[in-house]
Amino acid sequence: MAKIAKPRMGVIGLGSRGYDLLWAVIVPMAEHGIIDVTAVCDAYEDRAEKGAKYVEEHLGKRPFCATNWKEVVDCPEVDAVFVLTAWEAHVDMCIYAMRAGKKVGVEVGCTYNIEDCHRLVRAYEETGIHCMMLENCCYGKRELMALNMVRQGVFGTVVHCSGGYHHDLREEIVNGDVNRHYRQRNYLHRNCENYPTHELGPIMQILDINNGNRFLTLNSVSSCAKGLHEYAVEHRGADDPVSKMDFAQGDMVTTVLKCADGRTAVLTLDTTLPRAYSRGLTVRGTKAMYSMDGDYFFFDGNPHFATVKDLIDNPENNAEALSEKYQHRIWKDYGENPIGGHDGIDWLAYNGFVESIREDITPPIDTYDTATLMCIACLSEESIAKGGAPVAVPDFTAGKWITRTEIKDEAKGYYTLKK
Amino acid sequence: MAKIAKPRMGVIGLGSRGYDLLWAVIVPMAEHGIIDVTAVCDAYEDRAEKGAKYVEEHLGKRPFCATNWKEVVDCPEVDAVFVLTAWEAHVDMCIYAMRAGKKVGVEVGCTYNIEDCHRLVRAYEETGIHCMMLENCCYGKRELMALNMVRQGVFGTVVHCSGGYHHDLREEIVNGDVNRHYRQRNYLHRNCENYPTHELGPIMQILDINNGNRFLTLNSVSSCAKGLHEYAVEHRGADDPVSKMDFAQGDMVTTVLKCADGRTAVLTLDTTLPRAYSRGLTVRGTKAMYSMDGDYFFFDGNPHFATVKDLIDNPENNAEALSEKYQHRIWKDYGENPIGGHDGIDWLAYNGFVESIREDITPPIDTYDTATLMCIACLSEESIAKGGAPVAVPDFTAGKWITRTEIKDEAKGYYTLKK
Repeated sequence: MAKIAKPRMGVIGLGSRGYDLLWAVIVPMAEHGIIDVTAVCDAYEDRAEKGAKYVEEHLGKRPFCATNWKEVVDCPEVDAVFVLTAWEAHVDMCIYAMRAGKKVGVEVGCTYNIEDCHRLVRAYEETGIHCMMLENCCYGKRELMALNMVRQGVFGTVVHCSGGYHHDLREEIVNGDVNRHYRQRNYLHRNCENYPTHELGPIMQILDINNGNRFLTLNSVSSCAKGLHEYAVEHRGADDPVSKMDFAQGDMVTTVLKCADGRTAVLTLDTTLPRAYSRGLTVRGTKAMYSMDGDYFFFDGNPHFATVKDLIDNPENNAEALSEKYQHRIWKDYGENPIGGHDGIDWLAYNGFVESIREDITPPIDTYDTATLMCIACLSEESIAKGGAPVAVPDFTAGKWITRTEIKDEAKGYYTLKK
Repeated sequence: MAKIAKPRMGVIGLGSRGYDLLWAVIVPMAEHGIIDVTAVCDAYEDRAEKGAKYVEEHLGKRPFCATNWKEVVDCPEVDAVFVLTAWEAHVDMCIYAMRAGKKVGVEVGCTYNIEDCHRLVRAYEETGIHCMMLENCCYGKRELMALNMVRQGVFGTVVHCSGGYHHDLREEIVNGDVNRHYRQRNYLHRNCENYPTHELGPIMQILDINNGNRFLTLNSVSSCAKGLHEYAVEHRGADDPVSKMDFAQGDMVTTVLKCADGRTAVLTLDTTLPRAYSRGLTVRGTKAMYSMDGDYFFFDGNPHFATVKDLIDNPENNAEALSEKYQHRIWKDYGENPIGGHDGIDWLAYNGFVESIREDITPPIDTYDTATLMCIACLSEESIAKGGAPVAVPDFTAGKWITRTEIKDEAKGYYTLKK
């Protein structure tokens, strides 16, 4: 491919997340002159039409509008696509686009069998066209700050990370029949770590995954499922059809990943019990620790019996107080002019992808990373079904992770915002 | 056995922990007239002598003093024993005492093979003499408060718990050759969840283990070992023999337990990297959550985007502020007159054991519970060695857990302090 100064983007999938991204990130990017939006699509005609109308109203030109996503990919006015659909559709759409010569930015999600991940990698290797998972939390303020500190050696040797998707989604899932949300059918029929990427993306960067390291094995154990049923009975009544559904998805899924170099990561799926939102990142090294819950650091030699409150209150431990010293340059650059959804991280992730098209370079999260992020769901499903048995995580790079260390540093596509 | 108004106690093991307990709990108990201390013992003569001298100085009478622990068990002046030795010696000492008709309170620890746990259970079943693990954290202020709230239904259906032994022990372990500490040899040669009981004891009570529920399986995964070596090099120099030791024990061990009723518990061993002390208990139910880190509750309907600081600062979430309403009666009774080590929990645990002798009743943590607490170490060692494979947790009760529900309530030996 060649550089494309202003990529013409097709948008596939305009459900709740897709439409939010359209108005919060994608149309503003066009308004900033970074991209054009030339096509939109959703399998539901009302959603597609609503998206087309929004684009026309804000950008002054009606985009091509379809209910068949292949028409968007095949559209000659489309250089690259955003795939923002339900999880089940991601892989086929990505591969079709890649094989059509169009780079893909795909929203976070999961796969249902491991072959889909291998197919994705083959599509890249046979075409040279990358698929980037648009993992916004890789651009989180604290995630990037922690990464920056890891690279500076502040943590000493990093040994372990943990994180979770701690997000009470009971209302969205229980009412999924009303709001046409794919989560309901997934929670009804599957039991797995279905949404690991918000914590795993940043952890993969910290642990050098696919760049000098890789995941060897995964174990997942699931609790029973109580939260959704009790919520449905309370909010929709015992006689409601949803209250009679037998949700397969356990309330708490704990997944442990072991790396080739012996380091470990623990992921928690925690979406159907009451709690405050958190991604719960912890980074554990021989010289320091970071905890996103409480947002504090602990440095070797700090008082051993300090409480979380002590650490939050102490400017020498409080992450916000330390951020001036340690913030990542991406956030320093960007912090002046925040724009886009989710406190800026959507913008940064989408911008990283768009920059990879504009500059014709490898995206910051490449196809190997995307396959690794996607494979957790089906591997964890297998492990849970086998009582928590260890399951091998494929080496999608087929050995290239050992020598891919040269792109470990920040130059790996963490582009500064260009406006 | 019959009730013994003032049990005559033998104390076996006077290392660092044993001696601390002697002056902080055991001698004070005698001063309160609850027990007599009639024998002391340590394999090191200097330690035994120091203990005997301390008892004589404070209680006015020199106890029997030995370096051979069997002499203490066999001593006719001894009704029951405290076993406070290195982990490796616990099981044999307990069984010998039980078979000699003497109840045993044994300090927390672990086993090295599963048969030792079965032997312990057989010793009880053949003699009717119980062995109680003196798990002080079962008496923690917050642990008991959480248990009380679980029993009152505040959490709704409890689905999941987690906890850890988050205690930076690098100094103790690295200098274990100097201070004759058993941890050094254990960390050198074993890789397992070697110390789960501080979090697991309270979690077992919350999850009704051995009383209507049981653990089915366990998975453990260990990180690499970096913390002790780096600490030794920094504090003793690269040429020091300890700096050349190759520690087997991983810095972070994650263990997931699955219960017969589908609930789960996650345990973390975290003793060789810098961080603040915590037992990190979390309790997750369909109506509420508790987090010991930060010491706050979250109740269904609380603001979803609350931060840890918000929750700490809000009296409706802050555990200290809620403790008047929800504190367990043991702590309410005891709170007036705290006494004994570790903020009172040592006293409460030891008192629970002593009361079971004085009243001739089942101790609050009985032999089945003790075997369950002890088995985690060797099972986790097996699981880690097998790459995190699920390992069956034996049903030490041989089916009695199904019908032992009658002793689920607080009457199960949480005796009020009688003075």
